[in-house]
Amino acid sequence: MDDVHFAVLGTGGIGRRAIEYSNSKEHLTPVAACDRDGVAIDHDGLDADELLAATEGNIASDGGAAVKQTGQDQGVVASAQASPTETPIDDIIAESEAIDAVLIALPNLEHDFIPRVAERFAEADYEGVLVDVLKRSRVIGMLDDRAETLEDSGITFVCGAGATPGFLTGAAALAAQSFVEIEEVEIWWGVGLKSGYEDNRGTVREDIAHLDGYDIESARALTDEEIEDIVDEHDGVIEFNDMEHADDVLLERAGICDAEDVTVGGILDVRSDEKPTTTTVRVTGRTFDGEVGTNTFQLDDATSMEANVNGPALGYLKAGVRRNRAGEYGVFGPADLMPGF
Amino acid sequence: MDDVHFAVLGTGGIGRRAIEYSNSKEHLTPVAACDRDGVAIDHDGLDADELLAATEGNIASDGGAAVKQTGQDQGVVASAQASPTETPIDDIIAESEAIDAVLIALPNLEHDFIPRVAERFAEADYEGVLVDVLKRSRVIGMLDDRAETLEDSGITFVCGAGATPGFLTGAAALAAQSFVEIEEVEIWWGVGLKSGYEDNRGTVREDIAHLDGYDIESARALTDEEIEDIVDEHDGVIEFNDMEHADDVLLERAGICDAEDVTVGGILDVRSDEKPTTTTVRVTGRTFDGEVGTNTFQLDDATSMEANVNGPALGYLKAGVRRNRAGEYGVFGPADLMPGF
Repeated sequence: MDDVHFAVLGTGGIGRRAIEYSNSKEHLTPVAACDRDGVAIDHDGLDADELLAATEGNIASDGGAAVKQTGQDQGVVASAQASPTETPIDDIIAESEAIDAVLIALPNLEHDFIPRVAERFAEADYEGVLVDVLKRSRVIGMLDDRAETLEDSGITFVCGAGATPGFLTGAAALAAQSFVEIEEVEIWWGVGLKSGYEDNRGTVREDIAHLDGYDIESARALTDEEIEDIVDEHDGVIEFNDMEHADDVLLERAGICDAEDVTVGGILDVRSDEKPTTTTVRVTGRTFDGEVGTNTFQLDDATSMEANVNGPALGYLKAGVRRNRAGEYGVFGPADLMPGF
Repeated sequence: MDDVHFAVLGTGGIGRRAIEYSNSKEHLTPVAACDRDGVAIDHDGLDADELLAATEGNIASDGGAAVKQTGQDQGVVASAQASPTETPIDDIIAESEAIDAVLIALPNLEHDFIPRVAERFAEADYEGVLVDVLKRSRVIGMLDDRAETLEDSGITFVCGAGATPGFLTGAAALAAQSFVEIEEVEIWWGVGLKSGYEDNRGTVREDIAHLDGYDIESARALTDEEIEDIVDEHDGVIEFNDMEHADDVLLERAGICDAEDVTVGGILDVRSDEKPTTTTVRVTGRTFDGEVGTNTFQLDDATSMEANVNGPALGYLKAGVRRNRAGEYGVFGPADLMPGF
């Protein structure tokens, strides 16, 4: 397979780490990056170190350093490789013919923000891969609604390609291969988010929507103070059960099991970087010879959420590029990209 | 993806189970099967149940039933769908234009037997997938020697696609995605082989080659009685360390780690169907943020070796078909077929 030239939309934590990762991966070249105010494009490869240094302050969790500024500039524009722009995504779309894959690492400001970004790529007849790391089941439905548009354009959209879904649904799909019938998939995560808390308020807010008495709308309406109150009520450690994570939908569409046989839960500790519980995938099924067993996949507590998002996201990006080059277009979940019948 | 029409060479345990599995898998149609005396081909799909019933005695572990005979016929020829032949593999090669994939489930009588079978398919300009479930590193080298021939023909050869390598190297490749650098991969298997012992003497003999004081040649020279003596000396429970399994070579070629960082061992109990130890893959690495951790994949003791060979073999077969249709030819290991950069 040839080299993969990729772009990142957004240079927050995930976008920057993707660029950082590419430094240690052969055949993976970052050629474009943008945030709301600027865009950097170089089809021979961006200077990752310079870009990372210039955007360092974009991650609030890096010791809370102020966003670096060069004169009036902040964010991507602080890089010597970048230019200011009012249309960063369009600027990248304009150059997309030479871009194999795009990692969408933007905040999903509205439910359909990322699906609409995909649509804009399709309107420009982009032929390539789009990857998101979203978690919500409903976004997948919105992408499916646009599947024909994506297919017509030649886009392979890999959705939910972070840690969960993503890494963990992929592991579930692999573990399922011992069995001819799956009875249950249990996904249980632990996240310690002390130093990363400021940078991940959006995630915490989204997670709160899973608590009893809340839904997405009411969680979105909460003020920051109200969120702090909820965190305080739980002494900083919040347990979630039966979450509306896309894992269920993604495993069903890959033919692994019924969505209703998948449960997702976990524990978030915003006052410690230690994980409060070990991230574990348990797949229970029946073998062809009639035994019932449970295969297990566990992530070490020492692996951060960030490590478990970015490695898989780029792995799935590459798998998406293979599909795209084979002429397979449309919407794919992580489990669709695993071996398995 | 369209349906996959597949053939099995050999109707011992693995070949028969592949046909049995296809009954429960949509889009997977067995169209050809052979053993040394006969061949059955139907491009609309073989009658799996009839073929399985006719060849039932081919598996000695099925309660030790005698091989079923229809008049003079035994094996595949006992099926109403089959004809006797002296050239079973050539008969399948002659029909291979309509066959997407071939599972090679033949005993590897000589080191290069399966590589030579692949060569015969290449000589006939076969365009499709060949899959084996072998374990030995040296066979991979022999396939690599023929890579150009396979590529010229349009063959995608997936090697070592059973339980180990195969299932477990795939799991290692997946688990590696938390890390930017792998320090160690430990593959540890447990097999309880009481009822399957008669059917797996070849495997036991091959395993003995890993014991101190033996190598492949001396193990091949052992009589059945000498093997029984060795088994008796160990009270039926034999532990293996630092095995020459292809897992190391296959993980290195996929870019996961160096071969020398991979260790393979396990415990075989030929006097119990209970596994003497839990099959476990441990992948230790360093994350991008500098932590060292170990991700773990465990197979339930209740899942049999047979279940863990056949599910993955067919999963990799399908993954091979995707690669083949994308024009990717040559020799692939299981880890090559996983997402990952």
